[in-house]
This record gives sequence, structure tokens and C-alpha cells, in this order.
Amino acid sequence: MRAEPGRSVTSKVLALLDAFSPATPALTLSELARRTGMPLPTVYRRAAELVAWGALERGDDGRYRIGLRLWEVGSLAPRGLGLRELALPVMEDLYEVTHENVQLAVRQDLELVFIERIAGRHAVPVLTRVGGRFALHATGVGLVLLAHASAEVQEQVLAAPLERYTELTITDPKRLRRCLAEVRRAGYAVSDRQVTMDALSVAAPIRVPEGVVAAISLVVAHDRADPVALAPLVQAAGRVVSRALASSTGPAV
Amino acid sequence: MRAEPGRSVTSKVLALLDAFSPATPALTLSELARRTGMPLPTVYRRAAELVAWGALERGDDGRYRIGLRLWEVGSLAPRGLGLRELALPVMEDLYEVTHENVQLAVRQDLELVFIERIAGRHAVPVLTRVGGRFALHATGVGLVLLAHASAEVQEQVLAAPLERYTELTITDPKRLRRCLAEVRRAGYAVSDRQVTMDALSVAAPIRVPEGVVAAISLVVAHDRADPVALAPLVQAAGRVVSRALASSTGPAV
Repeated sequence: MRAEPGRSVTSKVLALLDAFSPATPALTLSELARRTGMPLPTVYRRAAELVAWGALERGDDGRYRIGLRLWEVGSLAPRGLGLRELALPVMEDLYEVTHENVQLAVRQDLELVFIERIAGRHAVPVLTRVGGRFALHATGVGLVLLAHASAEVQEQVLAAPLERYTELTITDPKRLRRCLAEVRRAGYAVSDRQVTMDALSVAAPIRVPEGVVAAISLVVAHDRADPVALAPLVQAAGRVVSRALASSTGPAV
Repeated sequence: MRAEPGRSVTSKVLALLDAFSPATPALTLSELARRTGMPLPTVYRRAAELVAWGALERGDDGRYRIGLRLWEVGSLAPRGLGLRELALPVMEDLYEVTHENVQLAVRQDLELVFIERIAGRHAVPVLTRVGGRFALHATGVGLVLLAHASAEVQEQVLAAPLERYTELTITDPKRLRRCLAEVRRAGYAVSDRQVTMDALSVAAPIRVPEGVVAAISLVVAHDRADPVALAPLVQAAGRVVSRALASSTGPAV
């Protein structure tokens, strides 16, 4: 095999995977080449290796997509499916009691990633997608994760522009800082129309001894929401998952 | 970067991911080296690149685990989360009606992979795990997937030894062939105590114009099961998911 200068081969292989996103789940060979900045023959050869292993699949339309084998390996991530498997029974209980949207999220860098979601079919529509990312400063789960993140992470989020989703989104760093202190004090977060003008979410932390590793929330229609009544329900769910994590013999989250 | 003889670098990167499995979700550096047959310094350097990207995470215990970023990319697999998102509402309906275990699986090579599972807490215990694999010749979903696989796949499965899970598992190729013909004729499969002596499953196909792409099943306690009553329920669920696939504007499954 020829030596390749510059970026390592490992990073080039990963760049091929990076080209895929929720907005671009299927790519042609030339789209892959354009998005990775690699020459067509190189992309062709590497993509063929990834297809052979199952990291990519090539459809009858000639487009590449993420393959089932990568999904299988990804399912071994403790913070993904591992956490989800522990939390799902509790989420199902919350759903059976409320028939509202139930969400589970973790922090990745300066954003959150939705790990699981039970969507109430007659509940308020939510835009989240399992595996999808969102800002930390607007949703209930995001506020919980941010409130319990390291000072370094908080400063980075507060220093960057805070996107305004609705007129109620907190975009002033000073106000957000006060809000985070209140989340820590209360033990839960309320996001009232801070993402969309029809929804309110109540979120609570999931903890291990080292700190908060995830957040769970109910997302309900703003006009039928009573955060004070919902908070104990969501907090109890968070504690049940925390206990399940503590007694799990599985990998650390 | 130095040229490396033999296996391509891409395949070596993938070999690092291959080292992780449901039985070995957390590995030390030396375990990784042993499992991949690569020298420690090479493994260390490559693992560091994978950690930087998020494909691996390294815990306080020094062990490597699959990282959340790989789970995120894996969630873009159409046959994984894409199919699951379309099927989940239907699976939840089946669960609400029956409070039994509901399973969704696809074929990968000569095995099946469980894509989703709703576990009834008071239902018969099942051993399946989302992202886990199982043989095709024993479960309801497996029999459906095998019955509708290409002749080539069927011959390969029939030519290999058929593992016996219980005294009722079909391990005779001739009998299995007859069973598969019956599955195609009936439009559903029944696995009666062929995996464990307390469970029975009824499975139905999920189709696109090109063929059967997945299977959905109910797994119930053998002694309270009425396959003839369950079959129309499961078949209807399979048809609803098939229609959802047909009208989905998303990527092909």
C-alpha cells in the first residue's frame, strides 16, 4: 500500500463516515469525494473496503448509506444503547402514566444527543430524533445537562452566541447562569416555550457518583402543563434510572 | 506516514472496532492488541485517533469502549434506526393490545439482527438484545427472514449444522425446507418452543416491492399462546410497517 502524506489514513476513513448526516444519509461517490476532499479513486477504494466490512451499504441507486454492521457496533456504546436499555422500562412507565412525550439525552461536547424518545401520538409534536443533536441552553434536558456540566463546558456555552428559538429562549448569558443555578437548586429544569411556542418540558438528572450523566424529560403541550405536578414524576424517574445504573454490572456510562 | 504492508490501513481500523462485541464491550490496550494482532504502539496510536474522533471512549479504568459518536453515525443506517423509527409506533400498538414481547429483526448474512424490542415486563422473558444476532432457523422472525431469503442464502443455512436450542428446534434440513414453504404459503411463521421451552413466537414479513426486508413478531408464553388468533394481528402490523416504508421519502431499506 502506498504511503499517504498529510492526514492519517485513520482520519481519512473517519472523514468518509463524517460525510453522512441526518440531512445527507445517502451519498453518491462524487458527493463523497466532494465532501471529504479526497480524489475519486481513493474514495472508491476506501468505500469498497467499508462496504465489504458492512460500515457502508451501496444501494441499487448507486448511493452509499451507513451499513447495518456499523449500527451493530455503535449499539455497543455504553452511553447509547446501554443507557437506553436501562432507562427504557422507566420511560415506558412515564409514558403509560402520562401519554406524553418522554425523552432521554446525554451531553456530547457542547450539545446534547437524544438517546431515546417515546412520542405520544396525541401529544404535542416534537422535532427530536434519536441520534440527533440539539443545543444545551433551550430544552429541559439540555438545561439539566448544562447545569451539571463542568465550569469549563458552561463557560464555553455561555461565551458562544445562544441561538433564539422563540421569544422565550434565554439568550442572555447572565440570565442563563441564574437559570442554571436554579436548576441545580430545584433538582429539575423547566423549559417553558423556549424551543417551540406550544411545548413545555420538565427534565431531571440521571446521576452516577461522579456526576450527572444523562437527563430524562416529559414534553407536554404548554397549555395543559403543570410543571409543579410533573416535576416529582420526572425526578422519581431520574432516580430510578440512576439506581439502575448504580446496580448495573455493565460498562460505566 | 509510513507505508504499511499487508492488510490495508482501513481494514486495520475496522479490525479495532471488530474487537468489541456484546461479550467484550470494554477492552484494555493490551486486549485490543491481542485481539487484533497488531503491535501495542500501533494500537495505541490508532486508538488515540479513534478516541479523538469519538469512535471510542476511554474510561477512568483505562479501558476503551465504543463511543457515542459511532452510535450517532450508526443511527443513520436505514436498516437500523430508520426502519425502527417507522416500525416503532406499530410495535407500541401491538404492545398496548397484548402486553407481550414485540420484536423487529432484519437478516444480515446468515443470521438475524434484532433492531428493536419492546419487552413486556410481565411477559415471558426473552434473551434478545437490540443490536444482537441470532440464528435464522429457530425464532419466528428468523423463519420469516429465511423463508423469503434468496435460494443461495437458504442453501447455505441448510448446508451448515443447525444448532439445537430445545428438543423442538428443527435441525433436519428436509423438515426445515418444508417448514419454510409453509411459512411462505401461510404468510406468517410460528416458532413453538423452538428457542426456549416456555416461549412461542408468531412472526410476519415486512415487504418492499423488491422482497422481504424485515420481520416483526410477538413472543408469548407457550402455555397461553393461540397462534391462530395472534397471526392476523402480527400480519396486520407487518403490512402497516410495509406501507409506511413504501410511502417513506427516506432512504431505501
